[in-house]
Amino acid sequence: MKLLTVGSVAFDAIETPFGKTDKIVGGAGTFISLAASFFLPEQGIISVVGEDFPKEDLAEMEAKGIDLAGLQIKLGEKTFFWSGKYHNDMNSRDTLITELNVLGTFDPTVPEAYQGAPYLMLGNLSPEVQRTVIERLTVRPKLIAMDTMNFWMDIALDELKKTMKLIDVLIINDEEARQLSNTYSLVKAAALIQDMGPKIVIIKKGEHGALLFHGSQMFFAPALPLEDVFDPTGAGDTFAGGFMGYIASSDDYSFENMKRAIIVGSALASFCVEKFGTARLKEINKEDLNQRINQFVQLAHFQMMEL
Amino acid sequence: MKLLTVGSVAFDAIETPFGKTDKIVGGAGTFISLAASFFLPEQGIISVVGEDFPKEDLAEMEAKGIDLAGLQIKLGEKTFFWSGKYHNDMNSRDTLITELNVLGTFDPTVPEAYQGAPYLMLGNLSPEVQRTVIERLTVRPKLIAMDTMNFWMDIALDELKKTMKLIDVLIINDEEARQLSNTYSLVKAAALIQDMGPKIVIIKKGEHGALLFHGSQMFFAPALPLEDVFDPTGAGDTFAGGFMGYIASSDDYSFENMKRAIIVGSALASFCVEKFGTARLKEINKEDLNQRINQFVQLAHFQMMEL
Repeated sequence: MKLLTVGSVAFDAIETPFGKTDKIVGGAGTFISLAASFFLPEQGIISVVGEDFPKEDLAEMEAKGIDLAGLQIKLGEKTFFWSGKYHNDMNSRDTLITELNVLGTFDPTVPEAYQGAPYLMLGNLSPEVQRTVIERLTVRPKLIAMDTMNFWMDIALDELKKTMKLIDVLIINDEEARQLSNTYSLVKAAALIQDMGPKIVIIKKGEHGALLFHGSQMFFAPALPLEDVFDPTGAGDTFAGGFMGYIASSDDYSFENMKRAIIVGSALASFCVEKFGTARLKEINKEDLNQRINQFVQLAHFQMMEL
Repeated sequence: MKLLTVGSVAFDAIETPFGKTDKIVGGAGTFISLAASFFLPEQGIISVVGEDFPKEDLAEMEAKGIDLAGLQIKLGEKTFFWSGKYHNDMNSRDTLITELNVLGTFDPTVPEAYQGAPYLMLGNLSPEVQRTVIERLTVRPKLIAMDTMNFWMDIALDELKKTMKLIDVLIINDEEARQLSNTYSLVKAAALIQDMGPKIVIIKKGEHGALLFHGSQMFFAPALPLEDVFDPTGAGDTFAGGFMGYIASSDDYSFENMKRAIIVGSALASFCVEKFGTARLKEINKEDLNQRINQFVQLAHFQMMEL
């Protein structure tokens, strides 16, 4: 098993200018492992759901090679539920409902079969839970990547900093990078974040692409300019899952390969936003993904000549 | 003479979080022609100054091959003056003073020696003045590029649209593209702007790079992530001047060469912001520029492999 993911498996109810959903399956762990499944025949997930979580969806995950030994099902309890509404520009959203349910008491367990996995993706969760998983691994993974958000910077900054000391890659957005470093310039922000632990910092900038800071090296990744973003939910998790799935599959975390992994993650995220929830990711195949990646290559390609 | 530029030659007084200046030489025409001079041994400028404009600065422009036959000097009148203050994020600014002076009655004249120039850059000015220059050319240039800003969209939209029908390339920022098209998606905005006239639309996104829409083709240009932006004044004009200087010098406005021209313009703009006004642009040479361009190449380079 090359990749372990820790992250929520949840229900979302989403409203965008294009429509709204009832409760659909979402959660960081869901998007991450689904995206990673494009590259990995098997992987593990550490998560928790309630008794209300549909068996068919679990079966679908298993069919994609996502091992569920680390996914706890709490009888008599309810699955984490989030509801949100996006504004017209799709760059900001209001949270309407957050019901922690099983996530409120989540005590992550690491099945024996998961021990020794070389790659670990910590999806957005409380930094204490993220750290607990690291502590419960008998062998330190080769590469630990982590997502987080401003919520944890607001209410659990010390815990977040403790966990950050243990990881290799931090994946956050530009606003979060500025908040975490208290600095506007993203170059300076990345350097300050590297001082907090992770030597590799990926700053996502939505429609503006992403920046990779890998030690002292830097990469400016393009984003595909889209006519419409239908539903941004899960795009960041999909990016992270595609990124880590690609890295784990190739077992190569060099700067050059991380650039490729970012393009792959961006391409998957560009599909994710085309429909609600995981719908679009479930439709596409590797050929679709290759074609989309080729669009990124075309979009960013230029050939300079000496002046 | 391969390139004509129309644009203000002016005084600026600038305040940024890093310091402030007294009146220094600025203006769109100044930055554009200075940037273009890296590629062109001679070029023309159509502009106007007052009697108060320093002779040494005019001599310096001439020494760089900027022909001043089209620059009117109004005796007894004063040069255009703008004063502004940048906010902490450097992305927004307040205009403190605007004294139109000679620009208020500017009637552009095209010297005989300028007729037949194949490339025309219309710096940000009233769309009527921009159109007057086009009308006073006896031969239609091969390529006409134009800069404008939200100010003209607010007060002279009909005039702006009339001028836009006559041009090939529009260079504006993302906010302006959204205002002009009344559309949030930049892909849709570019298509709507193309319908207004210019088949080539360049949308500048500051620290996020630039998008080139060339007919139905698209290019995502990187920006160099900077630790500090000292003074953004003139960066957009420098970009446009580098872009058109490179195009005019190579006499090639294909999609591939426009990509290169955008990188060149971006590289020059990245120098521009390092000091107040034109100071940094006057210090650097072609070797400095080549090195900076190479940083852009490194920054954006990735090599994909089939999945």
